[in-house]
Amino acid sequence: MASDPAAARAGAVLDIDLAGIVENWRLLARQADPALCAAVVKANGYGLGAVPVARALLAAGCRMFFVATLDEGIALRAGLGGAPEIAVFNGPLPGTAADFTAHALIPVLNEPGQIAEWAALALCVLRDAPLPGQAAAILHVDTGMARLGLDACEFAAVVANPPPFAWRAVISHIACADRPDHPLNERQRARFAAAVAQLPGVPASLAASSGIFLGPSYHFDLVRPGAALFGVNPVPGRPNPLRQIVRLRAKIVQVRQIDRGQSVGYGAAHVMKTPGRAATVAVGYGDGWLRSLSHRGCGYLAGARVPLLGRVSMDLVTFDVSAVAPELAHPGAMIELLGAQYGVDDAAADAGTIGYEILCALGSRYHRVYRESSAIPFPE
Amino acid sequence: MASDPAAARAGAVLDIDLAGIVENWRLLARQADPALCAAVVKANGYGLGAVPVARALLAAGCRMFFVATLDEGIALRAGLGGAPEIAVFNGPLPGTAADFTAHALIPVLNEPGQIAEWAALALCVLRDAPLPGQAAAILHVDTGMARLGLDACEFAAVVANPPPFAWRAVISHIACADRPDHPLNERQRARFAAAVAQLPGVPASLAASSGIFLGPSYHFDLVRPGAALFGVNPVPGRPNPLRQIVRLRAKIVQVRQIDRGQSVGYGAAHVMKTPGRAATVAVGYGDGWLRSLSHRGCGYLAGARVPLLGRVSMDLVTFDVSAVAPELAHPGAMIELLGAQYGVDDAAADAGTIGYEILCALGSRYHRVYRESSAIPFPE
Repeated sequence: MASDPAAARAGAVLDIDLAGIVENWRLLARQADPALCAAVVKANGYGLGAVPVARALLAAGCRMFFVATLDEGIALRAGLGGAPEIAVFNGPLPGTAADFTAHALIPVLNEPGQIAEWAALALCVLRDAPLPGQAAAILHVDTGMARLGLDACEFAAVVANPPPFAWRAVISHIACADRPDHPLNERQRARFAAAVAQLPGVPASLAASSGIFLGPSYHFDLVRPGAALFGVNPVPGRPNPLRQIVRLRAKIVQVRQIDRGQSVGYGAAHVMKTPGRAATVAVGYGDGWLRSLSHRGCGYLAGARVPLLGRVSMDLVTFDVSAVAPELAHPGAMIELLGAQYGVDDAAADAGTIGYEILCALGSRYHRVYRESSAIPFPE
Repeated sequence: MASDPAAARAGAVLDIDLAGIVENWRLLARQADPALCAAVVKANGYGLGAVPVARALLAAGCRMFFVATLDEGIALRAGLGGAPEIAVFNGPLPGTAADFTAHALIPVLNEPGQIAEWAALALCVLRDAPLPGQAAAILHVDTGMARLGLDACEFAAVVANPPPFAWRAVISHIACADRPDHPLNERQRARFAAAVAQLPGVPASLAASSGIFLGPSYHFDLVRPGAALFGVNPVPGRPNPLRQIVRLRAKIVQVRQIDRGQSVGYGAAHVMKTPGRAATVAVGYGDGWLRSLSHRGCGYLAGARVPLLGRVSMDLVTFDVSAVAPELAHPGAMIELLGAQYGVDDAAADAGTIGYEILCALGSRYHRVYRESSAIPFPE
């Protein structure tokens, strides 16, 4: 640490275990076998860096990646080179279809206007230089999200009048995959299977992280895990089969003695019931450490749980370190905010949200360290 | 719009009114006159870009800027050149004092260890090349936050044994400045005034955005507005004296008809009570559009309020556009998420947070447009 100037300057260090992400992908791929296993790295790889994550998964054998937006696709293509398939969930916004072919991106076509725009472009591309699979697109059928994707009528129209390009795949999203007993799951599966039957020979993909654990009938030809790659539990209420792959440690800026009855932080919202020692670290909601963790979150210092005191500030969070020996709580010492003892799902529960949001919010001021091998343990 | 490829590719456009920020700074400076008015641009200028914001304020006459971290200070110095003063609230983390002098940054010294580290460095600097004001630092005394800053004993020790460098200023933070009737305000002001009296000739600074509106006795020599520059109301419950300076517009990806009883989004958490039309836009909590806005936020389409439906997804949000004429709700049309009708404080109230967090969370996928002149209105 001390030898790395960037780490010395930073208020917090975010360790990202690429080998752990690869292990998680392999576990998910085994779970879905014989379906193929893609990887979803949208929102900059759930906040962890789409390019380094995807490079590690590419080396492990992953051949298809999903992002949300065109710009994410362009950046990922630049980072990965020409080999893997990269699909873009949001599809072509008006006037952007040519950008997809320029960067060899596969659009997910969600509604009739996107199909029309892609068809117009495909007619030109295929006339100029017809190649197998060129101008292929993914068809999104809605089966119960009512967000993006063709409705039943629109899908019937596409089946009746096939467009002038090939379907690389047909996909849908499950709304309640994290609740195996929800009746919508089977309804969505059945609707999707019926749609797939109308497109013989087109690979089908329904399941994301949680969907993989709904059983083989949800796997079809391709699964698309995202959050589970990064340690979010795809089976809430059951033991998490995936590894935690992030560790976030924040540096103590100052430790102080606080009297009984003294208030801490903005709004004087926390009042000390007993005298104690408080350590303030250089992380705040300006780093995506959500303000809804005020009064509720915790950290770990030298193995001991230290409760969060008062409100999360923009650049600072204060913890009660009264239970930790004074020689262990000093400026420069690190309080672990995410790790083996308090994972992304734990922080999410305290913040009233889901692990996905905790990951996506991880801030740009953290010093990021990518660990290529699990053989190198996290530093203590 | 159509002529800008980057804007065409982006799912959302964030307009930042630099002229409005300058106007807000001038209003705050008049309010604080004769105290000087600095500008706080930490957390990357509250999510809006520290360098472009500070450049605009520098051109308007602002001569002192505050950031939170050393890396922010280094980046701002690179962006602004050598003229203005740049102070760093978090001060030197262990081993980083030399970085401050290398980039002409003024550290805020928060605790005895930071003072000791700075004193050791100052002895070397002043011996090698003594210049007036060189190695100056800002002293932070705590008056009631119990976060960073010297306590009363530590302050007395500093007064008794002055360090081998000059104090550029002495500062403190107010915990409850947004609640003018809170008794802690006057206690903090009195404690600060007593400390200032111990450091004759050292400029004093207590008030940030809300503190400026607590009255002249809170102004001392320098005020440090941050959030108010960016349109956050410094006087909650009273009319906002500042201008809204951000406008966020998200593009519709798809519009669909939804039947009565159909559910929308993840968790099937919203069920339509009547048939309607829903528009899904390319923004989500992966862009910092907080998930706590689920079921509660709204947007504006063609001047009409459109309620947010269901949960905020990572990359998508759905709005009920039933009340808007179908020809105005189509893919590529923009739903305004922040603007004159729904400002940062409105979004914060719906999200259960404060405008500061809404700003800091503004995402990296937005296409950002900086408007230098208010004479150029936001496009309709």
